[in-house]
Amino acid sequence: MPRAFISLTSDFGVQSQGIGVMEGVARAIAPDANVVHLMHGLPAFDITAAARTLETITHLPIGSHVCVCDPGVGSSRKAIIIEVNRGDFLVGPDNGVLVPASRVLGGIKRVHEITNEKYMLLPVSAIFHGRDIFAPAAAHLATGVSITEFGPPLPPEKLVAPAYDEAVAEGHKIKCRIIQINKFGSMHLNIRQDLWDTFHIRLGDIVTLISGRLPPIKLPVGRTFSDVPKQECLIMKDDFGRMEVAMNLGSFTERYPLKIGEDVVLEVASA
Amino acid sequence: MPRAFISLTSDFGVQSQGIGVMEGVARAIAPDANVVHLMHGLPAFDITAAARTLETITHLPIGSHVCVCDPGVGSSRKAIIIEVNRGDFLVGPDNGVLVPASRVLGGIKRVHEITNEKYMLLPVSAIFHGRDIFAPAAAHLATGVSITEFGPPLPPEKLVAPAYDEAVAEGHKIKCRIIQINKFGSMHLNIRQDLWDTFHIRLGDIVTLISGRLPPIKLPVGRTFSDVPKQECLIMKDDFGRMEVAMNLGSFTERYPLKIGEDVVLEVASA
Amino acid sequence: MPRAFISLTSDFGVQSQGIGVMEGVARAIAPDANVVHLMHGLPAFDITAAARTLETITHLPIGSHVCVCDPGVGSSRKAIIIEVNRGDFLVGPDNGVLVPASRVLGGIKRVHEITNEKYMLLPVSAIFHGRDIFAPAAAHLATGVSITEFGPPLPPEKLVAPAYDEAVAEGHKIKCRIIQINKFGSMHLNIRQDLWDTFHIRLGDIVTLISGRLPPIKLPVGRTFSDVPKQECLIMKDDFGRMEVAMNLGSFTERYPLKIGEDVVLEVASA
Repeated sequence: MPRAFISLTSDFGVQSQGIGVMEGVARAIAPDANVVHLMHGLPAFDITAAARTLETITHLPIGSHVCVCDPGVGSSRKAIIIEVNRGDFLVGPDNGVLVPASRVLGGIKRVHEITNEKYMLLPVSAIFHGRDIFAPAAAHLATGVSITEFGPPLPPEKLVAPAYDEAVAEGHKIKCRIIQINKFGSMHLNIRQDLWDTFHIRLGDIVTLISGRLPPIKLPVGRTFSDVPKQECLIMKDDFGRMEVAMNLGSFTERYPLKIGEDVVLEVASA
Repeated sequence: MPRAFISLTSDFGVQSQGIGVMEGVARAIAPDANVVHLMHGLPAFDITAAARTLETITHLPIGSHVCVCDPGVGSSRKAIIIEVNRGDFLVGPDNGVLVPASRVLGGIKRVHEITNEKYMLLPVSAIFHGRDIFAPAAAHLATGVSITEFGPPLPPEKLVAPAYDEAVAEGHKIKCRIIQINKFGSMHLNIRQDLWDTFHIRLGDIVTLISGRLPPIKLPVGRTFSDVPKQECLIMKDDFGRMEVAMNLGSFTERYPLKIGEDVVLEVASA
Repeated sequence: MPRAFISLTSDFGVQSQGIGVMEGVARAIAPDANVVHLMHGLPAFDITAAARTLETITHLPIGSHVCVCDPGVGSSRKAIIIEVNRGDFLVGPDNGVLVPASRVLGGIKRVHEITNEKYMLLPVSAIFHGRDIFAPAAAHLATGVSITEFGPPLPPEKLVAPAYDEAVAEGHKIKCRIIQINKFGSMHLNIRQDLWDTFHIRLGDIVTLISGRLPPIKLPVGRTFSDVPKQECLIMKDDFGRMEVAMNLGSFTERYPLKIGEDVVLEVASA
């Protein structure tokens, strides 16, 4: 029998006992599972950045994936489990942070609320549902507990709107959003590479990035950073299925101060 | 048979091979144990902050817990194992850092020194006992070696004084100490919630924080941050059994520059 | 049967999903292996610092060790596996970063290129070989795949030159290089302690550090930091087999701004 797999992602600092405690809680319930910390230290309360990071579980084993980016903890927002068609369970708050990952894992199969206290750590803290609700739920799923045991089904259309939608192509424009900025100052856009490929853009072509706030930015299309001279910019496929705007040996967002969550338009030569 | 459990806590930087090496040493001895990093990057040499962090193992499985905050490494301070009544072993230097956690785990059952070189990595480095003494001891305990094998018993009353004592109630005052400040600027006090509950304080009541250095600070009692307006302060139960003084959407210790280790007094309306 | 062991080292930030993704990829292939993160957040693209960190696997169990410090990713540099005489496999780019660790693990037994796509994650990203080539190779090795399956043998003398060579003794001088600076501002030199011991230097002796850029620096020989007064400097054995230049309760490299990769000379009293 394969080992169950659990991943943990959060906006806690990497120097926080919260991370170790969540892992400990999960291991107490599912001692034979493999537990991986996908990423912590995400921008605090930024559900767009967290949702995009959670998309990278496409490269992890099928399993139970916890995402704690939860500005509404302690309020009436629901705790949920989304089962996706690849077979994974996404566990976290119903605030839109889980939905984008479900799209890259085959789509939503079903959703259940977590209301059954049998699978929680009691008493449930008003401020740390990662420890008391989400990590325990992921671990119980890893031991084989059925999603239906955790609480009532929730129709997917009743979920809070996703942190972001997919980019939309209109003629030779792509209306998109900045969904992550990494530590090198590169921006990731909500454009899937398969949408990009429908434009038949070639390496070396120029696309124009239009924002409301800055002059248009010309971007050659490259394959990797070094396809342009030092400190020049480009657009290329990132390593997790989306499009990235970057500067070779420099920081794009330092020169062009755009932010996570902003909407921009890409103008391509031909559609 | 359940899997043995080991946790590691230290004031090493999170970007340090020391952490990975301690885990590797433990896994060489106890390859089937689960090893969790509770927290690293604690304030260097701050045994108060380390001791409070170690208290949070109440939420981890019963196991062997290493704490490396060891300003006296290389001196004559003892290396010890404290067995607590919950069944855990606390492994580290005899400098007071382990004792507070023993109090929240049912109290001390017995203490042994670590002197038996059979359970050390030889030659023992003068500057890295975490690798050569503490991690190996925790791993050997995880494989079933008896605490009595490591060295002679040490009467608990001979231990170096704890990093902090419990708060003391006197009439309607609580004499307490700041034992941790987190990255959001919230302060944790050495007041256990069961002591707090003996005061029958209600949500919305006002308590007064008195320090030697600052004017008295009025603090409404809340349940979570958002119980007070933005950038106002409150006192509430933290998520690990103690009392926390915080600011909603702001940093308490930025406005009131108090420090880990300072003694303060809380004045409550009625006793 | 002992559990296979895998370690991961990189210059990725500690707040990066790349680390978690590499572990997830390894665990999908080798779910029963123990996987340890030795260190991440190394200085970006600094193969000297990465090579020295990789040397510390002497204290880890025998296993497969990935090192991703790879300024040439996407270029024609080779991906390789070095088998060492201790029994470990070192997996990473052929850019000199793996060779120093091989010297402290008994020397090179054989080297193979990684060219067999059967053991890669396809399609291979142009910018993330850690995920698509190195972590999968380490995991397949951990499951028992023979090094000869990955690609053709490579004569060790055809490897790219090591990140650094060993220090050279000439009379009462040691020509050496700074190979790591830690977060406390201490410098580690490429002088092995067994070479040092051939000089029969005693505690309290004075050696002189000569660089091209700064006046000579007198360094007493100590055993640990506190062997010299506060904010004075010393040279001592580090905790991983090499020599370290440090300041007691202060930062050596803040006072003397030397850098990783610089060559310096130590003048000792007698040879």
